[in-house]
Amino acid sequence: MSSACCSATGASQAQPFSSAREARQAIRRGDWVRHTSGLAPRNAQANLAILPEKLAADFLRFCQRNPKPCPLLAVSETGDPFLPTLGEDIDIRGDVPLYRVWRNGKLVEEVTDITPFWRDDLVSFLLGCSFSFEHALIDAGIELRHVTQGRNVAMYRTNIETIPAGPFHGPMVVSMRPMTPANAIRAVQLTSRVPRVHGAPVHLGDPALIGIADIMKPDFGEAVEILPGELPVFWACGVTPQSVVMSMSPEFCITHAPGYMLITDILNSDLSLG
Amino acid sequence: MSSACCSATGASQAQPFSSAREARQAIRRGDWVRHTSGLAPRNAQANLAILPEKLAADFLRFCQRNPKPCPLLAVSETGDPFLPTLGEDIDIRGDVPLYRVWRNGKLVEEVTDITPFWRDDLVSFLLGCSFSFEHALIDAGIELRHVTQGRNVAMYRTNIETIPAGPFHGPMVVSMRPMTPANAIRAVQLTSRVPRVHGAPVHLGDPALIGIADIMKPDFGEAVEILPGELPVFWACGVTPQSVVMSMSPEFCITHAPGYMLITDILNSDLSLG
Repeated sequence: MSSACCSATGASQAQPFSSAREARQAIRRGDWVRHTSGLAPRNAQANLAILPEKLAADFLRFCQRNPKPCPLLAVSETGDPFLPTLGEDIDIRGDVPLYRVWRNGKLVEEVTDITPFWRDDLVSFLLGCSFSFEHALIDAGIELRHVTQGRNVAMYRTNIETIPAGPFHGPMVVSMRPMTPANAIRAVQLTSRVPRVHGAPVHLGDPALIGIADIMKPDFGEAVEILPGELPVFWACGVTPQSVVMSMSPEFCITHAPGYMLITDILNSDLSLG
Repeated sequence: MSSACCSATGASQAQPFSSAREARQAIRRGDWVRHTSGLAPRNAQANLAILPEKLAADFLRFCQRNPKPCPLLAVSETGDPFLPTLGEDIDIRGDVPLYRVWRNGKLVEEVTDITPFWRDDLVSFLLGCSFSFEHALIDAGIELRHVTQGRNVAMYRTNIETIPAGPFHGPMVVSMRPMTPANAIRAVQLTSRVPRVHGAPVHLGDPALIGIADIMKPDFGEAVEILPGELPVFWACGVTPQSVVMSMSPEFCITHAPGYMLITDILNSDLSLG
């Protein structure tokens, strides 16, 4: 996968929809088969993984044990496509603009509606997205280089091992945003308030300390320049659970396509502790 | 001055006094003419500057404009030696173990009681001390190298200018504590909660960016080793106001002697925002 993360690009653009619900309705009708970056910017967007029930308990355990890369916003009932805690009308079978269908760890199809693939044993997992905290950082006057440059955020596999659960295990993936030391300190403060969207950074400074050999060669996304006097700041990334799921080649799995997220009714401000 | 900061050394030692008040009473009797490090570790200790009233308004303005190095815990009434908001029985004329008396910017005497020097135009300023947050860091399992090594914390003049007020101006002095990136992130979180004792760091990483030429040559205190994989983390330091006051050579001034602080009735936990 190239990236499950979205970018805050375009947040200040004119909004094509007046609400998250209106955006989802357009998406459900098939009128918006594009990435969701910048749509309903006050609302939290979510990463999606749909797994057969027989993997659900272990995946839940995995998320519980690794809350920074896997901040669970919602878990559906088995076989139930609705997610009432994220929005009363959400039907996960059509409310994401683009899905990826995987069999035995291989991508077999990209579709805009998964109704034909739905099964009574499927469980949907919705995980928080750094999108939410990127808006808070930008609002605080912190430049996000990848946003300024219109790129996807740079992501890296690290030597930080997740805590395994059943068949799920593997290294943490992190996203990196370069910033001045003063902004890094401010970013720790701001993102500490939002543990449900990855929370505080997991590392800052020397990339080699977390197993990143070349900061200009990210494993996912695009490299961005680190200016003199800046530090790279690393957050646990929502690509981690997808990477972990894919590495154990589940018989069947559905995810969102990178950048094509579920837009929820939850306000980013409601995810903040303070 | 060598250092106005105290160190958390000895916090875990057996306590010679059962309360802050008992410690102050021993100090007032002249039975404890030693530094206050480790005494009443749950209680906030304070830096002291006593200035003539004609400088008070400008010094108050200076503290208001520079809250990170100059977090005011209390300001007395003019000519009044009592500080009821810090402890009902506090008499600033005898409750600090050792004072320094300055005339025209020169240290003229070190005394254990300033009653003979008291004037009706004096105003006492009590400023928060990093001592309070050092306990929080140690309690969180973060090693403080200077504490481990039994040294005074390393302090540096920086190129960060304070915001001037009247005759008061000059560079910010910072204290430095080396730690791993993960601990630096945790330390930002913990110290952000205590703005009245310097709050979050002002810098981390490359010392040259804030005008520190040689990290092994502090301007005050003692150098400590920075281990491979560690970052220097810099906090605004209570030495700043003393440095600023001395540089304008006031006609008359009294301060505490470095490390010989006022022990207040305020609990460190009461200074925490969360």
